[in-house]
Amino acid sequence: MNLILLFGDDFDPQGHAVLRDSRRLEHILKIHRAGLGDTLRVAQVEGLMGTGTIIDINTGSITLEVHLTQQPPPPSNIHMILGLPRPPMLKRTLQTIAALGVKQLTLLQSARVEKSYWQSPQLHPEKIHAELLLGLEQGCDTRFPVIHWAKRFRPFVEDELPKLMQTHDALLAHPYVTTPCPTETNRPTLLAIGPEGGFIDNEIAMLTKAGFQGVTLGERIMRVETVVPYLLGRLGG
Amino acid sequence: MNLILLFGDDFDPQGHAVLRDSRRLEHILKIHRAGLGDTLRVAQVEGLMGTGTIIDINTGSITLEVHLTQQPPPPSNIHMILGLPRPPMLKRTLQTIAALGVKQLTLLQSARVEKSYWQSPQLHPEKIHAELLLGLEQGCDTRFPVIHWAKRFRPFVEDELPKLMQTHDALLAHPYVTTPCPTETNRPTLLAIGPEGGFIDNEIAMLTKAGFQGVTLGERIMRVETVVPYLLGRLGG
Repeated sequence: MNLILLFGDDFDPQGHAVLRDSRRLEHILKIHRAGLGDTLRVAQVEGLMGTGTIIDINTGSITLEVHLTQQPPPPSNIHMILGLPRPPMLKRTLQTIAALGVKQLTLLQSARVEKSYWQSPQLHPEKIHAELLLGLEQGCDTRFPVIHWAKRFRPFVEDELPKLMQTHDALLAHPYVTTPCPTETNRPTLLAIGPEGGFIDNEIAMLTKAGFQGVTLGERIMRVETVVPYLLGRLGG
Repeated sequence: MNLILLFGDDFDPQGHAVLRDSRRLEHILKIHRAGLGDTLRVAQVEGLMGTGTIIDINTGSITLEVHLTQQPPPPSNIHMILGLPRPPMLKRTLQTIAALGVKQLTLLQSARVEKSYWQSPQLHPEKIHAELLLGLEQGCDTRFPVIHWAKRFRPFVEDELPKLMQTHDALLAHPYVTTPCPTETNRPTLLAIGPEGGFIDNEIAMLTKAGFQGVTLGERIMRVETVVPYLLGRLGG
């Protein structure tokens, strides 16, 4: 937790933040070992970043006087489209994309995604919110990514993609092409990454027909936890 | 395990590979669900890649007829210098650098590295070997990375670095500079990444004096598991 994120209901009528949950209290007291008068890095969810000075510590609550003046870092211009990963990988991936500033993530059904993954408790909204929060606290950002569901491949490609393609470039991490992945895109870009085992040929054909450019990352096979930061590093923005 | 790596003592006098360890046997039988006559992707450690056809299955052993004709993927030209991570992070990082083709990794003491980390069982040679093996099996490569120890910061910078600087560019992931990290380096490059909390100012000064160019990754704070693939994706090669 490199940043303490404050929600609307953390604020009292005087505009001070009053924290009462054990997760943040323990972090402040045990990790930061902060005391009265100490200043911490804080931010308001979907708002500005700044500092919070501890003005009161009680059993079960810490009150911060906050000064929020700084814009959060610019968002990534990547809209990631990801074959739904296995639940434990999804957990880490949600943290990573939030930490790296991705604001749009579509989780996509694909032939190689086990249907049961869609029933995982890891996909409950409160679990997803918790992982994204950890990522924002790690990376120091205030704006939550928006998670989109595409539980059927073809309707997504036929009905949703055409709208997105009007405003985005579109890249597909592809094992069998020789076009290297570009670096440093400055344009809004859809980035499609297959599930474990990859998209099947028919799915690749549909994405290519929809306008995706296949790009290679070389011969190595990467786990989703690795390929996500690898590609975000490569594409920048 | 996208590739089954074979060691010298796996081979019988006829040149067949005879696997006897439960890890690889279980993988072949339970994950691949392979049987007599099936062909698997195999490679010889530090050697060529190719295929292995199952010619015998016994209780406790599987015999493969191997054909190795393919070069492993080209190595990364990055020599990574990493403030020694916490043991669980080290474990994942070793897998990641092996999977991504890094062949030289120096683990470096730094003021913000807890001394106790150097005593972790995770640093035993057989544990390191096991993690690197998992990474090579994941990424599909045959050549083990070489892990260097730099248990004292100043002697490393003063005695070891000057030799390396003669043949390498040198980049330092740095929170307070504005020079963006380059993309797609094609030259041998030393890449220094601080420990959790970063290098201290004095260490940054010593690395800069030694010739390292500080480069920024933006405002976001990344975990070592994230920054390693992020930078390897960015720098390519």
